[in-house]
Amino acid sequence: MAGQIDRARAARLMQAAGLDALVLAAPESFRWATGAPAGVAANWRRLGAAIAVVPADPALPVGAVVSDLFAGPVEAAGCAPLVRHPIWPETADLRPYLDETGDAAAWVARATAARPPGFTRPATFDRAAALAGLRQVLAAQGFGHARLGVELSAVPAADLPALEAACAPAGLQDASLLVERLRAHKSPAEIAWLREAGLITEAALLSLIPEIRAGATRDGLGQHFLELVRQVAKVRGTGGVTAWEYVGFGASPWASPGVLGRGDVVKVDVGAVVGGYSADLARTFTCGPASPPARQVHAALRQAFEVGLAMFRPGVALRDIHAACLGAMHETGFPSYARGHFGHGLGASIWSEEFPYTAADSDVVLEAGMVMAFELPWYLDGLGGFIVEDMLLVTEAGAETLAGGGLPHALVELG
Amino acid sequence: MAGQIDRARAARLMQAAGLDALVLAAPESFRWATGAPAGVAANWRRLGAAIAVVPADPALPVGAVVSDLFAGPVEAAGCAPLVRHPIWPETADLRPYLDETGDAAAWVARATAARPPGFTRPATFDRAAALAGLRQVLAAQGFGHARLGVELSAVPAADLPALEAACAPAGLQDASLLVERLRAHKSPAEIAWLREAGLITEAALLSLIPEIRAGATRDGLGQHFLELVRQVAKVRGTGGVTAWEYVGFGASPWASPGVLGRGDVVKVDVGAVVGGYSADLARTFTCGPASPPARQVHAALRQAFEVGLAMFRPGVALRDIHAACLGAMHETGFPSYARGHFGHGLGASIWSEEFPYTAADSDVVLEAGMVMAFELPWYLDGLGGFIVEDMLLVTEAGAETLAGGGLPHALVELG
Repeated sequence: MAGQIDRARAARLMQAAGLDALVLAAPESFRWATGAPAGVAANWRRLGAAIAVVPADPALPVGAVVSDLFAGPVEAAGCAPLVRHPIWPETADLRPYLDETGDAAAWVARATAARPPGFTRPATFDRAAALAGLRQVLAAQGFGHARLGVELSAVPAADLPALEAACAPAGLQDASLLVERLRAHKSPAEIAWLREAGLITEAALLSLIPEIRAGATRDGLGQHFLELVRQVAKVRGTGGVTAWEYVGFGASPWASPGVLGRGDVVKVDVGAVVGGYSADLARTFTCGPASPPARQVHAALRQAFEVGLAMFRPGVALRDIHAACLGAMHETGFPSYARGHFGHGLGASIWSEEFPYTAADSDVVLEAGMVMAFELPWYLDGLGGFIVEDMLLVTEAGAETLAGGGLPHALVELG
Repeated sequence: MAGQIDRARAARLMQAAGLDALVLAAPESFRWATGAPAGVAANWRRLGAAIAVVPADPALPVGAVVSDLFAGPVEAAGCAPLVRHPIWPETADLRPYLDETGDAAAWVARATAARPPGFTRPATFDRAAALAGLRQVLAAQGFGHARLGVELSAVPAADLPALEAACAPAGLQDASLLVERLRAHKSPAEIAWLREAGLITEAALLSLIPEIRAGATRDGLGQHFLELVRQVAKVRGTGGVTAWEYVGFGASPWASPGVLGRGDVVKVDVGAVVGGYSADLARTFTCGPASPPARQVHAALRQAFEVGLAMFRPGVALRDIHAACLGAMHETGFPSYARGHFGHGLGASIWSEEFPYTAADSDVVLEAGMVMAFELPWYLDGLGGFIVEDMLLVTEAGAETLAGGGLPHALVELG
């Protein structure tokens, strides 16, 4: 199997939850479990484009339902049983039929000769066909009467009755949190993607710094960061890299003025994305000398950041890091400071922030193999947006910085 | 109200469905109904970050539940009642308190003095607080016992029981399709965004053509298109423009070789996005003279395209356009051709393809104000990817081309 799932860990969590198998519906979870993309029909995030069934028994392969167009990589990844359902794009594999006649009609006729008479394609994808496929997969796996954990956070309520009918008499229970807990532990390949994303992000941010000067525009800085990511990725020979940027400056954290001016606070919160896995790194600068209140705010955030950063190692509860950072902010002259989380998991999710959260109500304890963004942000209308953020891999020995190690945590007063 | 919803049309559809109000949960629908963004907490697409309640009575304002951070624009848009719930980012508005002491701690203390004692923020957002807010809004609107249409396609099944409890005893029914039907009719502002997106897309694609020559790389062409979009948008003074590209070449529609070679088929399927509204335009080229089978395939697609294009006007059923295009393909030597849809609605959705679909099972009849991508694609392994696609606005008189009017539909043999 080519997926990133830790089957032994999955088996333990499923046993503890009394589950025989997991039914995964989010496109990111499908790819994580199978190693193959969910395909274009999953872009609507409706149920059925791609479904993976992960048995609790680690010896059994992952079953899958996937569109015909994307079945090849799923089969190559070793998924079984595998059921295909047709989707809207029309295709034909002419390669075995290319000959010197040069007649495309003849080639297509041969390539499609095995289709059932009257073959048609659905407007988008056929949920009923996909769910009939799921029923087949479950029956073949012996899960017709099983207890199934379903990612109900990724199943639209409009599709739930059809899913329940397809699985009956097997019982469904919500396993969204169980899947999040599993996905919080990264595989070596996931760590490699995140490490590369972090490295590219930090290199691009370092190269951006000379451009942060009076007269720069917000869009100019943002585009320049994205271009730097492309350049660094090209030099490193890393394909499939995208990036995002939240760059802003000025007294409002929400709307930058036309051009960067002397004294402005500049917040740069950015990430490169490698193989779908997103880095997250942020620093705060000023254009010219900072004002005393800007220095005061950043100094408070920075000392709270160092308090939390020193706590990142296996065995530490995220709620304790939250309490320590919040306490440090309160003690340094800002007793009302009330941020909900000081960072989040990183991976391939619907958004760049994923479970777990370094928050007051978290029951998560750090373990080696977790990759986290750790951040102390504050958005102050009238003064600007402030943030310090590193990207960390929890290791047996403590924590390794995947992005931010080459950048000071302090407020950097430029020019 | 600043939203794009046609309240009179919404009233008619709700009356026909026996509904008193719509409860909108998708971030795109929230923005469409209120005119204000759903905010950062909606990025996870879980229920509660932002909810709009649209009464059937067009005289009543749209009610809203939204995060504190994004409440300003929702209030400015005239939404009422409006309930705020706190989310994780910590903020303070220091503007009224800036003084010559330059003491940030004193400013923050004054700016947060009105907070309740022990104020905290949730790890992400507080679904219970948001749904208590929804209950308040419904009660204030007199919908405590109403029949509510809910966008269940955008409500995760994991959140449905909490939504039902928050609305009880009001009854919920799925109104996903009703909302799609409403959103298919674009407002003047939506048409303006789509028109601008189409114009930028076509200009950028025209400028890209000289770059389509032997030795070009796939990533190079793709990046060049995105850069051209930025340039055209800048020249036109259009802000907030993004873009996407599916550029590919070679004998496989799924994986381009390293560099473009003589004889390769080149598929360029691209869109600029203005204010969240996506254009969609595609053409096929060859690098040097096309092979006879490539000409044969494209000629078939092109004549079927012209058959369908001539049918775009109010009163025509999408299923009839699908049948005509499919029939034209079958008659021209390709009787097995089985594409599911020949295009789709355009707007601001979770993906660039949205309802309605020009498909065999569609019950939609074209009306003035609909914006559609119309396309004849074919993916042939061994020959390449082929497509002809224009972007159309249905008008009282017929259809206006929003993208593609300046580009021939024929296969363009370059160089």
